[in-house]
Amino acid sequence: MARFFMDTDQMQGDALILTGENAQHARVLRLKTGEQVLVCDGAGNECVCVVGEMDNKIVNLTVLERRSAISEAAVRVSIYMGFPKSDKLEHVIQKATELGACEIVAYPAARSISRPDEKSLKKKLERWQKIAASAAEQSGRGVIPQVLVLDSYSAALERAASADKALMFYENERATTLRMALESGNFRTVSLLTGPEGGLEEKEVKQAMDAGWKVCTLGKRILRCETAPL
Amino acid sequence: MARFFMDTDQMQGDALILTGENAQHARVLRLKTGEQVLVCDGAGNECVCVVGEMDNKIVNLTVLERRSAISEAAVRVSIYMGFPKSDKLEHVIQKATELGACEIVAYPAARSISRPDEKSLKKKLERWQKIAASAAEQSGRGVIPQVLVLDSYSAALERAASADKALMFYENERATTLRMALESGNFRTVSLLTGPEGGLEEKEVKQAMDAGWKVCTLGKRILRCETAPL
Repeated sequence: MARFFMDTDQMQGDALILTGENAQHARVLRLKTGEQVLVCDGAGNECVCVVGEMDNKIVNLTVLERRSAISEAAVRVSIYMGFPKSDKLEHVIQKATELGACEIVAYPAARSISRPDEKSLKKKLERWQKIAASAAEQSGRGVIPQVLVLDSYSAALERAASADKALMFYENERATTLRMALESGNFRTVSLLTGPEGGLEEKEVKQAMDAGWKVCTLGKRILRCETAPL
Repeated sequence: MARFFMDTDQMQGDALILTGENAQHARVLRLKTGEQVLVCDGAGNECVCVVGEMDNKIVNLTVLERRSAISEAAVRVSIYMGFPKSDKLEHVIQKATELGACEIVAYPAARSISRPDEKSLKKKLERWQKIAASAAEQSGRGVIPQVLVLDSYSAALERAASADKALMFYENERATTLRMALESGNFRTVSLLTGPEGGLEEKEVKQAMDAGWKVCTLGKRILRCETAPL
């Protein structure tokens, strides 16, 4: 079923209208009157609709059913990633969205080589949010993940620790596996924190452990910074 | 510990020599006499060595210990992937190597848009094998995965079915999850088969089921063809 995102306030009532980019997308998909489509607000609500009259600019829809998005994971996962080089963050945003993450949060780690300056940040955030939206549409998500940027590693530690479970991955940890870390307790929200190229510094890991973080291994092989969060 | 790959027949005896690209790599890493390094044959054997005398062209090593590679997974995983567009196969080769796959096998699926012609194939295979080797080195693998190309979907089905367990991923399967499929039985080798962009065709899935294949879902979201195998 084709999927369109719409603002929550436009999704009220029994008749919805696709306009602008959505209408263009409908044309590309060659939607036909009588077909069913899904309209989502990107916040976890969706409507099953049937296509009514349409022209080049608008598509009329009739709502058949309203429901909570059925393709969302039961656990809310937030990804915290040290700023990587070049387009690796975009890659992680796209793939983490497909895989069901609810947030992707970038922070400056000690070994982060690049870090967008304030001037370019606003534009980049817009671009990253667009990548998340388009990956959400393509993968059938009912929620568009938020992309956030934090000022410091400490801020990332603090924000991430507010989840029911907060896990950090470190290549020098040997004992605790992800499976072991996930076995214990009930949790609805999880934060997963990984480093940039070159990994987290020892003192960063120590700072987290002092703050009560659980440190895990992802196995015997060293994963690239853009592979680990996924 | 720095890691170098060498042919098995050059890895005999108590004294090994790094030459050519390996010696160059040693220079880049600024290896020093007395440091320990790992020499692997890419087939699961490795030697812990200590660096002896060295100049710009060769590095003398003394073998301290011979052992089986300790970073290999207990289960041999082969990835079968329908030819995707552009550089997506390279991406899968790199990431699957990091994650521990032993083989990456590409086959022409019904919906594969691109498929290298015979002339360019040899060169591409060399390039793909090089990507696997370099990802193996970087991630600390003891084995360099083989990259193979098959002529047909039927050939892929037949070859993949020789593993202890052969699983196919299909977005229209609802009931059987990967976890369920992996729960039963003892196995040392697994084949995982995924489709190209647009997925496998229904008749391809039927052909596999008729041949006794297990078909699984990867969850409620649609994964891109380059995300599913990973």
